[in-house]
Amino acid sequence: MAETMIPKATAKRLPLYYRYLNFLANSGTTKISSTELSEAVKVDSATIRRDFSYFGALGKRGYGYDVMDLLKFFKKILNQDRLTNVALVGVGNLGHALLNYNFRQANNIRISAGFDVNPDIAGTIQSGVPIYPMSDLADQLRQQQIEIVILTVPTDAAQGITDDLVKAGIKGIMNFTPLRISVPGYVRVQNVDLATELQTLIYFLDHYGPTLKDTDEDE
Amino acid sequence: MAETMIPKATAKRLPLYYRYLNFLANSGTTKISSTELSEAVKVDSATIRRDFSYFGALGKRGYGYDVMDLLKFFKKILNQDRLTNVALVGVGNLGHALLNYNFRQANNIRISAGFDVNPDIAGTIQSGVPIYPMSDLADQLRQQQIEIVILTVPTDAAQGITDDLVKAGIKGIMNFTPLRISVPGYVRVQNVDLATELQTLIYFLDHYGPTLKDTDEDE
Repeated sequence: MAETMIPKATAKRLPLYYRYLNFLANSGTTKISSTELSEAVKVDSATIRRDFSYFGALGKRGYGYDVMDLLKFFKKILNQDRLTNVALVGVGNLGHALLNYNFRQANNIRISAGFDVNPDIAGTIQSGVPIYPMSDLADQLRQQQIEIVILTVPTDAAQGITDDLVKAGIKGIMNFTPLRISVPGYVRVQNVDLATELQTLIYFLDHYGPTLKDTDEDE
Repeated sequence: MAETMIPKATAKRLPLYYRYLNFLANSGTTKISSTELSEAVKVDSATIRRDFSYFGALGKRGYGYDVMDLLKFFKKILNQDRLTNVALVGVGNLGHALLNYNFRQANNIRISAGFDVNPDIAGTIQSGVPIYPMSDLADQLRQQQIEIVILTVPTDAAQGITDDLVKAGIKGIMNFTPLRISVPGYVRVQNVDLATELQTLIYFLDHYGPTLKDTDEDE
């Protein structure tokens, strides 16, 4: 499959499309118009058409999209036929909630190891996931060939642990701490900063009011 | 203060700038160059200068930025002198973690009420926050003049509860469910879809490798 460099905004919408197509397929729907898809995923149809165009012509004007075709296509793009194991570092309140979060529902992702400094938790199984002491970090990540880590440690521990993760060969970090961690160029960081998300919502309500639809321009 | 319509990407970075400036001020730093700021918040300096330019010229070439000036400015923009009360609906694992999440640290936000269907939780105080039964939703939101809700309910309950929230006069929803909820045009929704964030990270590692710096173009 020929691949083009797609915009980050498009890549972010792919899992959304995939999940909804999965839902449609499960409910027996075989065809969907770009208007219906737009309504369901709350992305305007021009953006949907542009997103899809990066992967070649997937729909026919006046016919819409074939659900199974699209589903097969996104499944391949998103590597959904392969299980991705990730680790979670820091089993506090948020970490614990994420262990219980169903990442697998429409995404073939599994947290297969947790790590924590707390000796009361390390060595136990929490929500089905084995929790190891921090001293086992490098070893376990290597043994389990884990390249992606969810980081839910206290802010003041974030950079130190990030350095350890980088040394252990991690390629991607989903960073839930408010710290903007420093990593070498070959490590990818996805920041999920909950306070900032909430503050952005408040800012927009204070200043502008209602939701705009999802477009590249304002995202 | 004259206000321009700023891009969503800029608005999302304001809390980040604000938090870092707060940190600088607390540590006694009075001046910062745009290069230092760029390093710390991981946003390229051209983007920082452009972001700041929406609010008028805030720095001087060759001198950098005055920390206290910037801080005062962002404090006003972000309404940090006023406490914002929000509610949380759905006190499950994730909801509970968010009750413990320190939204106030650098952001003047407080979860002042929780709501849940579970009679074992409703009527209790969890992590300092009173939890009310769903039947009290409209009443409590009105009494506490809450306009913003964090939604952490099961997916199949999300749309029904959203409709109730809209009826109760809510203006903003931070949606943690994977469902793209339907709301009237005057209600703003901020989606925080954890599985999608993680899948986007995996997608980028599979296809392109390392992190790009934060710019409008690829966000």
